[in-house]
Amino acid sequence: MNEKDLAKLIRETTLKVLSSDQQKSDKEIPIAASNRHIHLSAQAVDRLFGKGYQLQKLKDLSQPGQFAAKETVTLIGPKGKLQKVRVLGPARGDTQVEISLTDGFALGQAAPLRDSGDIEGTPGITIQGPKGQLKIDKGLICAARHIHMHSTDAERFQVENGERVQVKVSGDRGLTFDNVLIRVSEKYRLEMHIDIDEANAAQIKNGQLGTLLKY
Amino acid sequence: MNEKDLAKLIRETTLKVLSSDQQKSDKEIPIAASNRHIHLSAQAVDRLFGKGYQLQKLKDLSQPGQFAAKETVTLIGPKGKLQKVRVLGPARGDTQVEISLTDGFALGQAAPLRDSGDIEGTPGITIQGPKGQLKIDKGLICAARHIHMHSTDAERFQVENGERVQVKVSGDRGLTFDNVLIRVSEKYRLEMHIDIDEANAAQIKNGQLGTLLKY
Repeated sequence: MNEKDLAKLIRETTLKVLSSDQQKSDKEIPIAASNRHIHLSAQAVDRLFGKGYQLQKLKDLSQPGQFAAKETVTLIGPKGKLQKVRVLGPARGDTQVEISLTDGFALGQAAPLRDSGDIEGTPGITIQGPKGQLKIDKGLICAARHIHMHSTDAERFQVENGERVQVKVSGDRGLTFDNVLIRVSEKYRLEMHIDIDEANAAQIKNGQLGTLLKY
Repeated sequence: MNEKDLAKLIRETTLKVLSSDQQKSDKEIPIAASNRHIHLSAQAVDRLFGKGYQLQKLKDLSQPGQFAAKETVTLIGPKGKLQKVRVLGPARGDTQVEISLTDGFALGQAAPLRDSGDIEGTPGITIQGPKGQLKIDKGLICAARHIHMHSTDAERFQVENGERVQVKVSGDRGLTFDNVLIRVSEKYRLEMHIDIDEANAAQIKNGQLGTLLKY
């Protein structure tokens, strides 16, 4: 091979590598593990913390407007309790408790796998707050894997709200998650949410990136 | 299309479907979730249960000769304890404690991801038995995903001892595990072993099958 051909080969190879890197980073999504938590209705806040009580912000969450509250509650199941379960704010229309399958074993009440907000027919649970106790008759779920994204992200990834995709995670415990729900909103910031069981199964480090794959 | 061509098409299509089904079932592997457990050396049995003590069989495990013992121990970490940790028999050369990442958080001592038997440089832990306490200086691991198989299975799957493969699991929480270690022995029976975090992440049902995929 002469010098000119070699230079051409190097240039072409470099361009290929750069383009493949670009393509890869274009498909990357930060992953966050959600520990057990609870969303409360305004009525539930009243019951658990006292009439007219306002949740106090501990810190902002990645999704704009959402925050971890200073308040925690205790979940009481048939076989055990889970203490210091973080309340997320602001208050919502329906109370929803999100736990892992591991947590379900500890409580003695399994949580069905559901997309957030889809709580019809799910089991209830007893919630203990500092000012009162509340027994909800539905709302205990194990949240299905999902990706929050802005419409500009959806355009870039060429996916639609409600679509299911795969997300590949690297590392010694690498794996590819199937059935990952896409949730698109102008209010969302790009982030994949999984639960603690899923994070441990893939040994996800904080801030780790996953790669979105279309079916 | 005439009758003869139609008959031919039906026959060929049927054969294709049958062959693809056959291929699929040929690649299927039963999956078992391992809860936290401990393998003890003869010296460790002496120390924890008394000099000359013999482990009692509770039930046979899937791997020939291996059994769950009636005996349990307590693991004592810097931040917490895990009680009723099952002892597996028979006694081995080295004491090895296998826990999940979730268990590591509870103990306050993280377990590194290792293949079973590879315990050099791993952390120790304190083990409490009915007759004594033992502090091992290594042996606490989170066991890496692996498949036990007989050499006839290895031949059928066209894989070798020490090779890493992928295993696909179906279902609402379906996923594909990467880096699954193949362990071949004349003493092994075909079974994939994962820990409780991995089982929950994929919502594995007892006796569920996974599909082996070569890289």
